[in-house]
Amino acid sequence: MRIIVDCMSGDNAPREIVKGALTGSAKYDVDVCLVGEKDVIEKIAREENLDTSRMTIAEANGPHITMEDDPGEITKEYRASSSMAVALDLLKSGEGDALVSAGNTGALLTGATLKVRRIKGVRRAALGAIVPLGKPMMLADAGAQTDCTPENLVLFAVMGSLFMEKVMGIDNPKVALINNGAEEHKGTELQVKTHALLKQRSDINFVGNIEGREIPEGKVDVMVADGFTGNIVLKMCEGTGLFVKSTLKKLFYRNLSSKIGALFVNGSLKQLKQDMDYSEFGGAPFLGIAKPVIKAHGSSNAKSISYCIHQAKSYAESGMIEEIEKTALAEKAKEE
Amino acid sequence: MRIIVDCMSGDNAPREIVKGALTGSAKYDVDVCLVGEKDVIEKIAREENLDTSRMTIAEANGPHITMEDDPGEITKEYRASSSMAVALDLLKSGEGDALVSAGNTGALLTGATLKVRRIKGVRRAALGAIVPLGKPMMLADAGAQTDCTPENLVLFAVMGSLFMEKVMGIDNPKVALINNGAEEHKGTELQVKTHALLKQRSDINFVGNIEGREIPEGKVDVMVADGFTGNIVLKMCEGTGLFVKSTLKKLFYRNLSSKIGALFVNGSLKQLKQDMDYSEFGGAPFLGIAKPVIKAHGSSNAKSISYCIHQAKSYAESGMIEEIEKTALAEKAKEE
Repeated sequence: MRIIVDCMSGDNAPREIVKGALTGSAKYDVDVCLVGEKDVIEKIAREENLDTSRMTIAEANGPHITMEDDPGEITKEYRASSSMAVALDLLKSGEGDALVSAGNTGALLTGATLKVRRIKGVRRAALGAIVPLGKPMMLADAGAQTDCTPENLVLFAVMGSLFMEKVMGIDNPKVALINNGAEEHKGTELQVKTHALLKQRSDINFVGNIEGREIPEGKVDVMVADGFTGNIVLKMCEGTGLFVKSTLKKLFYRNLSSKIGALFVNGSLKQLKQDMDYSEFGGAPFLGIAKPVIKAHGSSNAKSISYCIHQAKSYAESGMIEEIEKTALAEKAKEE
Repeated sequence: MRIIVDCMSGDNAPREIVKGALTGSAKYDVDVCLVGEKDVIEKIAREENLDTSRMTIAEANGPHITMEDDPGEITKEYRASSSMAVALDLLKSGEGDALVSAGNTGALLTGATLKVRRIKGVRRAALGAIVPLGKPMMLADAGAQTDCTPENLVLFAVMGSLFMEKVMGIDNPKVALINNGAEEHKGTELQVKTHALLKQRSDINFVGNIEGREIPEGKVDVMVADGFTGNIVLKMCEGTGLFVKSTLKKLFYRNLSSKIGALFVNGSLKQLKQDMDYSEFGGAPFLGIAKPVIKAHGSSNAKSISYCIHQAKSYAESGMIEEIEKTALAEKAKEE
């Protein structure tokens, strides 16, 4: 088992990525292939005194893909030596079993779709983001596909449920459709049709619609949406986290009395911070790509990348891609 | 100036509605017409020792519309004596200048559209909800119209901006389009086209797209969306408020130390509670209906209803309905 890591992408690249990849490799007992500028990676490993016994390096000298680049850049000839493009090529050719990147989401999706390809029968790949509001919930699609059909959404539900079960270890995950009401006739034509299809399925535990108000409550394990709605929900969840933080700051920094109060809740505050910490939940899988690709949060630190290594390993071992292929091909046959 | 109040609808009807209407009438110097069961209203006014000098009562003996009723119920013959139907009939016939109801949103919108009618040139009425996250922001449409055209959204923007300026007293309100990215090519076809149209307008202060993450920050005054997206955003904002409350509860009730901490931040906590209190911001106007209709929150208490009386009065005095008609007719002429 070997995990390919794109070391030159993300807000904290390359240092935090290299650190996370090598600590993850030791912690989770797995080989890693670090993709990036060889001398930079070796220097960081030396400086940080990291265990390199299970590391190989694949040279990628750039120009690398930045967060601001257009997703289409990944397909350009002059980007062929970017760490992301090289990492995807390695995954495609079987030099590793899974890939972790904290880089540009759009570029990674475009690259994965064109180079690694989708699972047979899958027409759209989804970004399965993990929403950290007290407990990890998956949101699929969190922004990969703005226009979706009911059939796309059904497959997002199946793939998201499989991931939460087989990779995140949740028993019989509860799956809900994000909608503007609880009743099955609610929503646009997309939600009405999707609800009807989800209700018929025996391979997922569909619990009905979920409204915006219930999302932060963490009642379900998988939330299904088109990528436009999903993106807004994901970012509002992130905004909620930031809002809670700024609210607490205002609350405790108001005057001397409130500052003293903060000392008394110190333990509670630390627990809360941990509950809402992205780095505790790892990254977001691209569901529907033929090999495991984990999109780490752009602001990932070493701890988060280390956890992504674990996630990527579990994903590669899970056998869920084969299961998705079976389901997707059966769905396609039904349609034809 | 007389405000019609639907006294039998809402979670806290009739007592809190009657109390709010009569305190609002005294506080904001305006006549009120209370619609509902005469003996019940009179009994509450007596028991609560309220000033009834500017009150008239319009009898409506039910069966009243409940929160669970199908919106279409408002059109049924046997509901003609419901407080909501009678209130709408009175508004239509000019017995009052504006209407306040805390009842079933769908029924109120259906009734207002059929009885009071839309402003000339307006094809879709929007629910202009006020989102209370630190400062009042308007969200239009918050759930009235799930399927919208770019032209609908442009008019929602214009109407929302007018309301925030003329009724809520905000100078040159900042208007933003809810979208899945900052760039103007982002979103589905609806958002791309709407963005292009909004950019061209000189009658609103359009500041571009707003992403989900920025919504709780309160950077803008009016957020524009189709009713499906808007409903999810509104309910997530409500969910965020509840999440903050439950988070604080967990934080302070964890152990003895944290309970002591709560005593030190008591003042701050009260301020926070007030900042996030729905009742401080009044109700949501139906934008595009030919006369002012304010939908109070279903869980409104007397304080909230009292503020809605003030809002309804400002709305009726603002002259904004005439302005909307001018704009809407000009838009319609442009299309033809």
